[in-house]
Amino acid sequence: MKTGNEFASSSSAARLAALKASLEKHKIDAMFVTDEINVRYLSGFTGDSSFLLVTPDDTRILSDGRYTTQLAQECPSIPTAIRLSNKAMIDLVAEQIAPLGDMRIGFESSTVSVAMHTALQAKCGSAKWTATVGVVEQQRLVKDAGEIGLIRNAIYIAQRAYQSVVPKLRPNWTELEIAHEMESTMRVLGAEGVSFASIIGSGVSGALPHYRPRSVTLADTASLLMDFGAKYQGYASDITRTLGNQQAAGSAFSGVRATVSDKFKRAHAAVLEAQLAAIDLMAPGVPAKEVDAVAREVLSKHGLAEAFVHGLGHGIGLQIHEAPRMSAISEETLAAGMVITVEPGVYLQGEFGIRIEDDVLITEGGREVLTSLGKGLDDCTLMM
Amino acid sequence: MKTGNEFASSSSAARLAALKASLEKHKIDAMFVTDEINVRYLSGFTGDSSFLLVTPDDTRILSDGRYTTQLAQECPSIPTAIRLSNKAMIDLVAEQIAPLGDMRIGFESSTVSVAMHTALQAKCGSAKWTATVGVVEQQRLVKDAGEIGLIRNAIYIAQRAYQSVVPKLRPNWTELEIAHEMESTMRVLGAEGVSFASIIGSGVSGALPHYRPRSVTLADTASLLMDFGAKYQGYASDITRTLGNQQAAGSAFSGVRATVSDKFKRAHAAVLEAQLAAIDLMAPGVPAKEVDAVAREVLSKHGLAEAFVHGLGHGIGLQIHEAPRMSAISEETLAAGMVITVEPGVYLQGEFGIRIEDDVLITEGGREVLTSLGKGLDDCTLMM
Repeated sequence: MKTGNEFASSSSAARLAALKASLEKHKIDAMFVTDEINVRYLSGFTGDSSFLLVTPDDTRILSDGRYTTQLAQECPSIPTAIRLSNKAMIDLVAEQIAPLGDMRIGFESSTVSVAMHTALQAKCGSAKWTATVGVVEQQRLVKDAGEIGLIRNAIYIAQRAYQSVVPKLRPNWTELEIAHEMESTMRVLGAEGVSFASIIGSGVSGALPHYRPRSVTLADTASLLMDFGAKYQGYASDITRTLGNQQAAGSAFSGVRATVSDKFKRAHAAVLEAQLAAIDLMAPGVPAKEVDAVAREVLSKHGLAEAFVHGLGHGIGLQIHEAPRMSAISEETLAAGMVITVEPGVYLQGEFGIRIEDDVLITEGGREVLTSLGKGLDDCTLMM
Repeated sequence: MKTGNEFASSSSAARLAALKASLEKHKIDAMFVTDEINVRYLSGFTGDSSFLLVTPDDTRILSDGRYTTQLAQECPSIPTAIRLSNKAMIDLVAEQIAPLGDMRIGFESSTVSVAMHTALQAKCGSAKWTATVGVVEQQRLVKDAGEIGLIRNAIYIAQRAYQSVVPKLRPNWTELEIAHEMESTMRVLGAEGVSFASIIGSGVSGALPHYRPRSVTLADTASLLMDFGAKYQGYASDITRTLGNQQAAGSAFSGVRATVSDKFKRAHAAVLEAQLAAIDLMAPGVPAKEVDAVAREVLSKHGLAEAFVHGLGHGIGLQIHEAPRMSAISEETLAAGMVITVEPGVYLQGEFGIRIEDDVLITEGGREVLTSLGKGLDDCTLMM
């Protein structure tokens, strides 16, 4: 059986080899990786402020004294260059770049700042700095088996937390308490934490797509939007369910009781219909924007197109939001190994918000919905 | 009494006015603020993906449909320009920039990526895009009364959590459980969460300055490094204490018992001496690197200079790490209103790590140490 370290080490070697093999395609002789997530993906190193310099024959990690021991543990097979504490990082970079002469060195133009670029040119002038976009992100688009396993674990933990917390909701719980209980449960179950700050919105607050939970109780609410995810060994899950109470007052439990309107029920069904139609279309070769369009068409049919104010979904992995995006302006095409959220929503200000979100793996034959929580209104009962 | 909103609104107006007044000094006619934290500081808006365009006569926030309602709540006095969901943000930017003609528009060169800069130049070509560094950060260096109040609250919460958690530590607790209990307690006390992932390192793990807690129990440990902070209404606190057990085995509580070595005790006292000497020097007009040097001198006197592998401290505010830095290469000078951590440390790989960190406000007359937890070894007893 492989230990975690051996596993990380062999994935790292494969990923670095793939990067080296792609240098020519990107018209560069070497790649200077500065994005923290990309450094982690390629090396297994989980710290920050550290860079990877990858040439066809060599890989080296540039870091500082805080990380010497961690580097030895997390990526023992990658040579290190450590900045002394009385030296600026740019000087260590210059020292390491100098021997490369006039090589074309790719830098990550979407995350390297203008100021850093200016410094690189000033201090490492002989190199031909070449702007690249998404070189490593392109590798990350398609997840390997190890990554899919970690995402499955992140989903498993988030789902168990939801299944544990929802049955104990009471009218005196606040949105903030629910968020904390979700996070605490995910941690007990082995998560490093949440993959993003949970959105727990009761009643009208569900209509704010990026709402943050407040100290308001559920006492008067008929519906509850819960958007949550766990982070497991760096990988994210992202799930939304919108719960509603359909029971008449006094019919079962005690406590204040409100019921969802018929309008809410119709909207909930419409969002679910849009989501299922979108998922049905997902397969290798399908343009991401077509999937978005299908969801929009369904909502349009129900007169709700304008209430769907964001894109349909986004990739998940080491980041909670990563490529590909599924929206009206996406230019990406689905491919096997991508893991993407599908999350249509309907937001009626002053009334309610509904979103249903699952995580979908694109497979050779089509797709696999990795999340498995019931999502129809009958499965999302707000019993308190 | 002012409501939170009125307070936020008046601070925002004052901060925007200060920015407008500084345009000429920075040789620009307008400022395009894209950094999320700077947008929040100037406008009060707490969402993401939104930009501020500030001209002498006008301020406008560029955002998208997810945030329409939140913008109205958080910054009602700032006009908005909302991107439609079928449109890219860069096109909205171009639309808003066009009427400014050939104005010199400052952009934040430390956070604007090379790719974004290229797009701005391509799509908003008539404007004279001008690289700026730290225009808003310079304002943020010196905290106003409202900000100092929020930092005090963030400190108060973190300290109470520490005071509550330490007395209940037991040998069967793991580092991860301690981290979760700290976070949970901070939240119960009103924090939004932690200001950074707590570093809870027992025994030799304390020697990794950026260690992350693991599932190891305290059973065999004699020392425990706890580095933690709360986030309160956006503002951070940052505190470290290193606890050690000095009691002989069997002298009081049950449970596995280890005691710290004399070497540990001497190092703990040396770190404290270095910290106190550094704090003593802090006052308006003092170069940050001199403060760092004083701490290093003290440790050097004890033969521990090489074990202090990082800078002495950093500013805190809306970010957990912000200007000014106190290190050997700092070029900043202390000024009244800055809030800075002072955190010398000694890291002996395979043995132990010790760090003592407080948050210090620079005042007209000198300094005020905002943190108040006991920090000598006798006050940091690891009783289990």
